Amino acid sequence: MIIACLDLEGVLVPEIWINVSEQTGVKELRLTTRDISNYDKLMKHRIKILRENNIKLNDIKNVINKMVPLSGAVDFYNKLKENFQVIILSDTYYQFAMPLMKQLNYPTLFCHNLMTDSNDYIIDYKLRITESKKESVLKLKELNFLVIAAGDSYNDIAMLKAADKGILFKPPENVIKEYPQFTITNDYNGLFDEFIRSKELLKEF
Amino acid sequence: MIIACLDLEGVLVPEIWINVSEQTGVKELRLTTRDISNYDKLMKHRIKILRENNIKLNDIKNVINKMVPLSGAVDFYNKLKENFQVIILSDTYYQFAMPLMKQLNYPTLFCHNLMTDSNDYIIDYKLRITESKKESVLKLKELNFLVIAAGDSYNDIAMLKAADKGILFKPPENVIKEYPQFTITNDYNGLFDEFIRSKELLKEF
Repeated sequence: MIIACLDLEGVLVPEIWINVSEQTGVKELRLTTRDISNYDKLMKHRIKILRENNIKLNDIKNVINKMVPLSGAVDFYNKLKENFQVIILSDTYYQFAMPLMKQLNYPTLFCHNLMTDSNDYIIDYKLRITESKKESVLKLKELNFLVIAAGDSYNDIAMLKAADKGILFKPPENVIKEYPQFTITNDYNGLFDEFIRSKELLKEF
Repeated sequence: MIIACLDLEGVLVPEIWINVSEQTGVKELRLTTRDISNYDKLMKHRIKILRENNIKLNDIKNVINKMVPLSGAVDFYNKLKENFQVIILSDTYYQFAMPLMKQLNYPTLFCHNLMTDSNDYIIDYKLRITESKKESVLKLKELNFLVIAAGDSYNDIAMLKAADKGILFKPPENVIKEYPQFTITNDYNGLFDEFIRSKELLKEF
């Protein structure tokens, strides 16, 4: 009775804001928590930039509609869901993710919401819960599930730590150095094999 | 940010034990909690009957492999998952459910496990958690999701009560009389419409 929790961006689909930045030509939308570490400040900045450039939610959706999952992601996800109950844990927004979820045939996704005004401009964001990824893993464990989680970067670490087994997928060098406790995988075959291997190990307990 | 929780047997797929009883010709496997109200006694009785009739897990799986979801269930589920994050909450066992899950393209399912011996006879069952359906709804609510739940019978009532909105699907007459607080639906169009209507109502809060 194992749940596989997967990060979305960087694991199954490309980074959404980076794509939006590239497709709209607005370079400032590329900023991440590496540039503005306070997430609330970063999001408010993004919302301001979007408004200044007259970019509405629907314009962003049009960009996202052209995005596709990472090469191999659909096959990986299809194989994973035959072997585990899969839940995607992401800090993105349903309004952004759903066109990509369609291409994965609508996995169960836990993420957040954006608020728009009557003119379709994004005016605010609503985090469903703080530390959503970690909290979701903890609640699943309280339901007596074993949890194997995979993510690619800093915002996944709390989730990986909370899980019974944490796996890094194509992590940046600094994450590898800082968190040597997590198994590192660099392609979908490796990630899938590590899920299966972890399942067998967890079953022994 | 709404989760749709669906019961499995009677809502998306036929009753599994009844099918196993019919296909194996072992009438006693038809007994339900209406006949033996104590679930543990019922399961131990079922396991005893299976052993006496030399029915192994794989024999049951062969029966279940021939089962199909209820007419219209696949279309209903596909439409529902475009509009909600769907989780199936069931008191069945993964070993039974997975062939049917395949036909629904592997929705996320929370249920229980069977234990077999080295000869593939079922020797015990393991409830992941007591009151699994209700507890799952409560944990999802603790993650700040709104929950709309649908089920067909007594074992769904605690889940429907715990949810922000509970819907009955083709319930028996005694359930209708005993729980007049839940909306009753009798076909998939009605059930889908009620999910959408409930979503709109919940959004207003």
